[in-house]
Amino acid sequence: MKKIGKQTFVIKGDVVIRDTYTIAGKKEGEGPLKDNFDMIVDDSLWGEDSWEKCELKFQQTAVENLMKKNKIDKNNIDLLIAGDLLNQIVSSSFAARALGMPFVGVYGACSTMALSMGLGALLIDGGFAENVICVTSSHFCSAERQYRLPLEMGGQRHMSAQWTVTGSGAVWLSNSGSGPKIKNVTFGKIIDLGVKDANNMGAAMAPAAYDTLKQHLLDTKKEYDLMTSGDLGTVGKNIVNKMFNEDKMSIEDKYDDCGTIIFDIEKQDVHAGGSGCGCSAVVFGSFLYKKLLNGDIDNLLFMSTGALHSPTVSLQGESIPGIAHCIGIER
Amino acid sequence: MKKIGKQTFVIKGDVVIRDTYTIAGKKEGEGPLKDNFDMIVDDSLWGEDSWEKCELKFQQTAVENLMKKNKIDKNNIDLLIAGDLLNQIVSSSFAARALGMPFVGVYGACSTMALSMGLGALLIDGGFAENVICVTSSHFCSAERQYRLPLEMGGQRHMSAQWTVTGSGAVWLSNSGSGPKIKNVTFGKIIDLGVKDANNMGAAMAPAAYDTLKQHLLDTKKEYDLMTSGDLGTVGKNIVNKMFNEDKMSIEDKYDDCGTIIFDIEKQDVHAGGSGCGCSAVVFGSFLYKKLLNGDIDNLLFMSTGALHSPTVSLQGESIPGIAHCIGIER
Repeated sequence: MKKIGKQTFVIKGDVVIRDTYTIAGKKEGEGPLKDNFDMIVDDSLWGEDSWEKCELKFQQTAVENLMKKNKIDKNNIDLLIAGDLLNQIVSSSFAARALGMPFVGVYGACSTMALSMGLGALLIDGGFAENVICVTSSHFCSAERQYRLPLEMGGQRHMSAQWTVTGSGAVWLSNSGSGPKIKNVTFGKIIDLGVKDANNMGAAMAPAAYDTLKQHLLDTKKEYDLMTSGDLGTVGKNIVNKMFNEDKMSIEDKYDDCGTIIFDIEKQDVHAGGSGCGCSAVVFGSFLYKKLLNGDIDNLLFMSTGALHSPTVSLQGESIPGIAHCIGIER
Repeated sequence: MKKIGKQTFVIKGDVVIRDTYTIAGKKEGEGPLKDNFDMIVDDSLWGEDSWEKCELKFQQTAVENLMKKNKIDKNNIDLLIAGDLLNQIVSSSFAARALGMPFVGVYGACSTMALSMGLGALLIDGGFAENVICVTSSHFCSAERQYRLPLEMGGQRHMSAQWTVTGSGAVWLSNSGSGPKIKNVTFGKIIDLGVKDANNMGAAMAPAAYDTLKQHLLDTKKEYDLMTSGDLGTVGKNIVNKMFNEDKMSIEDKYDDCGTIIFDIEKQDVHAGGSGCGCSAVVFGSFLYKKLLNGDIDNLLFMSTGALHSPTVSLQGESIPGIAHCIGIER
């Protein structure tokens, strides 16, 4: 069994993150990572007639450009693994329709990037695939209208609310070539401490992030140069730090959150920071991947965090369950 | 590489379908498979205050009873793989919250059962897991209100419409023990021939079913005693037969559809037959699994078929993409 501890799968062979491609929206393209993205799209519709169609264009283009850049033919991709925030993961399904590859759809809300990369890594190491592309996306406008309120209403945003990242990140995993390697994968459990506030996703996700991260560290006994969560924002990041401090396992020096990395939180008026499937996807595919390539860090624990928030059952009085998946990466 | 042909992954070791557990609703419990289900629930709310909460109780109970029946402790389950039709796969997410196991959420609409069993089989054969539970569900009432019209309206149903199965099927996959074995897995591509009619899912899914099934047969060069699609109903099943006939590859003698097996179509007034994630899940977990155990058939190609129908982008003029995944099973 390629498993250590309670919950962590170990990659024995080579699973190389060969390349990435990231597309960011206007606001993300004005933030601190602006020089790291492969493409910035200023128009929130990108010439389409709906935000949903714009989002699927982000995802489709991210994969197409990743393949063009690396001269990969679609017949050499064994599997496309994708998901997103929208109902019926419509951005992924429709992008996959255009891309014409065998398709595994996943749903983990904002935990999708680590979930799809984790599955892809295991399928490659299991000997089933040579090349897998993992992709996800989110779009501020399509997410707001599905999960919260019509944008046209111009509602006041809560200070604990996060700004859904408009962007898509695609990753090419392969059993050959050079690049950082995925060494282990921890799929998380669903953790729900009863948060019901749809404007405080950071608090809803933080206990799941803590649970998966702690289990991964206990299972692997590794020390990482950097550990990142997906989109907890300032509120959730503080809760994670507090939970580790209570365990006398301070991680503050090595830990950061993609939702606080992607925006200049004060200047860009994003309240608690970035969120959405696209958040950890574009931060990983640009900033973090480059840190690994450049040797700024030798290893990275990359975690994506999801709030499995259902507006329907929330109206029925239910709370918001959280989940987090993580992968360990080495140069 | 454990892959043959263009799209089919081959299982080299043992991936045993150790046991199944099925729960069916009232209408399904009055149909031709009534003596095959482990449990029949007559109440469409099962004591809960919403159909969504009822559906998650189906899914949670199916897994709990499967584990009880086989005396499995949750700590011995390496992974729970689940998905369903509802937004944010809420039945699966909330069932997973109660079950407390590492959780991989998938979305493939009604293709979920074969998708989750396929992934589970590959992860076991890849050496990552000893025991995996795959589960899915659907509920007539929660699906109708999410995808079509309020039930209270009492709208006339189209003759090509299908009846969403109320039910849940859970499957225990293991690398040891005795039972039918999964031998290969084909994940499908998204196929969309432009059907826009949300009352004719069979026609929307049939081309994807044909594509995956044909690719699987070409890749494996196998002949099966029985091949089943998930929920094409009478309309979709006829289209699949016609597409194979045009290829001079008649499959009619060996091919059936779970959506036409689960109901007495004329007497039960279900128009084109059953549908929903639960359809192929409960038909596989009861009737088909028993056929394999009894030796009525020596092998089975089990396919689940999904219509990735998004009410939001349908209103924007988009068509309904289809997908189908299949697994080859031998006694």
